[in-house]
Amino acid sequence: MSAPQSVLDRWNACGWYRLTGLEVIDANEVGSRFRMTVGDDHLQAYGTAHGGSLAGLLDAAMGLAIIARLDDGEGCATIEMKINFTAPVTPGDITATGQVVTLGRRVVVARADAMNADGRIAATALGTFSRFTDEGA
Amino acid sequence: MSAPQSVLDRWNACGWYRLTGLEVIDANEVGSRFRMTVGDDHLQAYGTAHGGSLAGLLDAAMGLAIIARLDDGEGCATIEMKINFTAPVTPGDITATGQVVTLGRRVVVARADAMNADGRIAATALGTFSRFTDEGA
Amino acid sequence: MSAPQSVLDRWNACGWYRLTGLEVIDANEVGSRFRMTVGDDHLQAYGTAHGGSLAGLLDAAMGLAIIARLDDGEGCATIEMKINFTAPVTPGDITATGQVVTLGRRVVVARADAMNADGRIAATALGTFSRFTDEGA
Amino acid sequence: MSAPQSVLDRWNACGWYRLTGLEVIDANEVGSRFRMTVGDDHLQAYGTAHGGSLAGLLDAAMGLAIIARLDDGEGCATIEMKINFTAPVTPGDITATGQVVTLGRRVVVARADAMNADGRIAATALGTFSRFTDEGA
Repeated sequence: MSAPQSVLDRWNACGWYRLTGLEVIDANEVGSRFRMTVGDDHLQAYGTAHGGSLAGLLDAAMGLAIIARLDDGEGCATIEMKINFTAPVTPGDITATGQVVTLGRRVVVARADAMNADGRIAATALGTFSRFTDEGA
Repeated sequence: MSAPQSVLDRWNACGWYRLTGLEVIDANEVGSRFRMTVGDDHLQAYGTAHGGSLAGLLDAAMGLAIIARLDDGEGCATIEMKINFTAPVTPGDITATGQVVTLGRRVVVARADAMNADGRIAATALGTFSRFTDEGA
Repeated sequence: MSAPQSVLDRWNACGWYRLTGLEVIDANEVGSRFRMTVGDDHLQAYGTAHGGSLAGLLDAAMGLAIIARLDDGEGCATIEMKINFTAPVTPGDITATGQVVTLGRRVVVARADAMNADGRIAATALGTFSRFTDEGA
Repeated sequence: MSAPQSVLDRWNACGWYRLTGLEVIDANEVGSRFRMTVGDDHLQAYGTAHGGSLAGLLDAAMGLAIIARLDDGEGCATIEMKINFTAPVTPGDITATGQVVTLGRRVVVARADAMNADGRIAATALGTFSRFTDEGA
């Protein structure tokens, strides 16, 4: 079970992914893998990546990990997420992985981690998603 | 007690605020007020605002509400935040407010809400921040 | 709109409320009010109230605030909650209030605060609940 | 690195663990293992375990996983936690495991899962803790 390339392409082409340099590399039954290139555009006033950029990365990593486990024509929406910021992120490449924790018929729980270039966890998230029929698919 | 205009200007000029169209309007002892213009760049593949854009807005709204309450030369960093997405957000202006819940000597708890143009709550957050001496200020 | 006394009585009689000294005082359209008497049974090894006792209090305060807003025969289940512990709690009476933030057709978001005897916020929570038809009502 | 039996004994003897039937089995560098016997005292009005009982279990599982990694004479306090309830829990034995995610000098992030008798995840948590010198140790 794996998200088809057309689904990954569709997400990689969306506005937010392009704006923030977010890319889904793959998404299958094991989980999702993402990459984001952090540049000056991601920084807050103290010179490290703004929480919104990392929240976007981990929301996406959880979402695609879930989509890879859904039936054709289904989608998911984030009900809520919690994210811990555990190390400052400076410009450069950051990676992330997402996994499904529990896959319910209506509600799905997932988690995701973002890793700095040195492999250290920079942020970790736990989120809740609803499943829906994706009429736009 | 109010954050001086120079502090607001500094934040409004940072990369992330400019990238995502985020603007702090004011920040004082009552709380912070923000505005964000949602455009196609903020959308995910289903056509509504990506969670990262709203997480960025509410992280910022909590952060500036805190900064307005700190001493000169102090800053704050987001330890973690939780955000609920309660209504879909489509292109247009969205506003947000942030408030301090408890102001500890080391740890501060804050919350924030984002409102659609019709005044409906689109997202709500509760976050934890650490205080630090902002040597870059 | 207010939860009838029979509903409050039903909750006040349940095992967990009795075990932990939890009592719902009222629950109406404004929100819920709770009281809990913290004794030695609530303490962890450092001598202050265990997080579980406060999580139980705030989960309950959110839940009953929601129930007061539902239709007859409906109930709610906690999907998830986040709780910040902002001040240590020692033996004595603690109070809590809960409010609905957004009341969706399927998902409800609520928040709650616990206050020490001096009125200081000891814990604050934000949670997500699902509505269901309460066949046992 | 492992928490000495005297530390486990101290926690197993505290009021909250005894009140709610919570027991730490071991805690070492890999993580912690807990057991809780759910009885009628743990139930809410719908007949399944109250969220507070599971929040207590997972708060404890995270806390002892951290204590096993701290220096002698150090303790930890829960700053905040988020818990997802993923399956109803009925009377019987439930187990839990806790792990440290990131161990900072001041702030520690941990997570924990609770498992029903059939091995299914009943609740999952992600929490933030502060380290302190435990003068009572």
